[in-house]
Amino acid sequence: MRTVYVDGQFVPETEAKISIFDRSFLFADGVYEVTSVLDGKLIDFKGHMTRLQRSLSELKFEFKPDIDQLLEAHRELVKLNNITEGLIYLQVSRGSAGDRDFAIDPKTPATIVMFTQSKSLIKSALAERGQKIVTFPDIRWRRSDIKTVQLLYASLLKTEAASKGADDAWMLLDGFITEGSSNNAYIVTQDNTIVTRELSTDILHGITRASVLKCAEELQLKVEERHFTLEEAQNAKEAFSTSASAFVCPVAEIDGKKIGDGVPGPIAKRLREIYIDANRATAI
Amino acid sequence: MRTVYVDGQFVPETEAKISIFDRSFLFADGVYEVTSVLDGKLIDFKGHMTRLQRSLSELKFEFKPDIDQLLEAHRELVKLNNITEGLIYLQVSRGSAGDRDFAIDPKTPATIVMFTQSKSLIKSALAERGQKIVTFPDIRWRRSDIKTVQLLYASLLKTEAASKGADDAWMLLDGFITEGSSNNAYIVTQDNTIVTRELSTDILHGITRASVLKCAEELQLKVEERHFTLEEAQNAKEAFSTSASAFVCPVAEIDGKKIGDGVPGPIAKRLREIYIDANRATAI
Repeated sequence: MRTVYVDGQFVPETEAKISIFDRSFLFADGVYEVTSVLDGKLIDFKGHMTRLQRSLSELKFEFKPDIDQLLEAHRELVKLNNITEGLIYLQVSRGSAGDRDFAIDPKTPATIVMFTQSKSLIKSALAERGQKIVTFPDIRWRRSDIKTVQLLYASLLKTEAASKGADDAWMLLDGFITEGSSNNAYIVTQDNTIVTRELSTDILHGITRASVLKCAEELQLKVEERHFTLEEAQNAKEAFSTSASAFVCPVAEIDGKKIGDGVPGPIAKRLREIYIDANRATAI
Repeated sequence: MRTVYVDGQFVPETEAKISIFDRSFLFADGVYEVTSVLDGKLIDFKGHMTRLQRSLSELKFEFKPDIDQLLEAHRELVKLNNITEGLIYLQVSRGSAGDRDFAIDPKTPATIVMFTQSKSLIKSALAERGQKIVTFPDIRWRRSDIKTVQLLYASLLKTEAASKGADDAWMLLDGFITEGSSNNAYIVTQDNTIVTRELSTDILHGITRASVLKCAEELQLKVEERHFTLEEAQNAKEAFSTSASAFVCPVAEIDGKKIGDGVPGPIAKRLREIYIDANRATAI
């Protein structure tokens, strides 16, 4: 049985409850972060906390998280649950004002929830064989840059993708790929340029994305941040996605069309190794 | 202290809790209905349950609600909390599978939550003076016809509208009004035609909307279901909104421009009376 964190208390997961009046439950009024754990240490914790603060600020939360306290709680959860490799989920909800009202009372105390998931991250069958991707229209709200819990569409897509025998979904907006259901999307063109959509309100500002682009720079790979189409993706040399929980994960197929040879490409594989090495070295 | 309903139990509101792994909390994976109470009776309960079933079906819930049981629970809550006039909120969440996973396990048992709000509905200062409306872009996900708890944007708009001294927000998509933050939007043109946006995935299929349009028909008023612009709204003879909790509620001003004389118009006032009379008579 896991020990989880709810509002300053470490409790058994079966006793971890929140009020039915909590605004994340009633209005999806909450934001989250997922931090990976390797060798019992946190990967890019600072990056996740910086984005958390941005999400809170964009949604005009008055609540300011105490980052030192959150770091301590993350570490305590790792210890209590003996996590060597896995994830820590953190949600900051607007909390409960004791009744349901659309209008936000800035004095509402935030609710903080955290829990661990033990998971093999480095050894990944999916990364070894490459993902099968299917595409769907991107009909999400137009602030996908804020990491809110409005994840219903992503959930439906992951479920729908699985029912089609695929591993994940990428989304299309006005003919261009935005991102994956819970990750950023990349292609490698025939002239070995890594292409990924530029940052805007249309995509999540991935912490892993920033780190991987830095790795690519260090490897002196060409990177273009711009829109790309499904057709361009299907005719690419390689494709891959990045996320905190799956690092760099190669793509083998998009909408039934094999990418390159239909197996993970050398650039994606190299970036995955470099990313893991670099972040393992700086984990805290 | 209210008595509320959580998964078959009637409990004091301070003890009403759900798991932190509930999918409404983590993924906004839940739908809801709000039914009005007048004279201790439920207004258009059947309409709300029909829409609830549609929402569940659109989101591929395997769970089928027992409508007789829900009716009984609604009535029990009215009785336990002595509600003469007010609202009953019902949320059906995908529930908790014990951990966080985007992919939906169809076997997850649904979570049902219900609570009452005592509120004066017929006597309304807002309906008497008319609402001040401000407009914002409609950036919500493109399935606003499904009554999900993805209400973060609506919450932000209501809060922003209030900070601008307004009562509510209407939304604009490609130059046309879609609807209010939690209600359908209408104008009355200079030739006394009631205009409201046609049903599509862009707006909620209001239960009150359907009932009010029926009232308008019985009064032999002209009705057009079509797109209308902000400019058309600002130059209309009247404007109003409809919702289960505010019935027909006149609009006095949109983005600083007075509608008609800047007071509730005769058609909106008449529709409000007729709607209340008709639905009071058929309340159960």
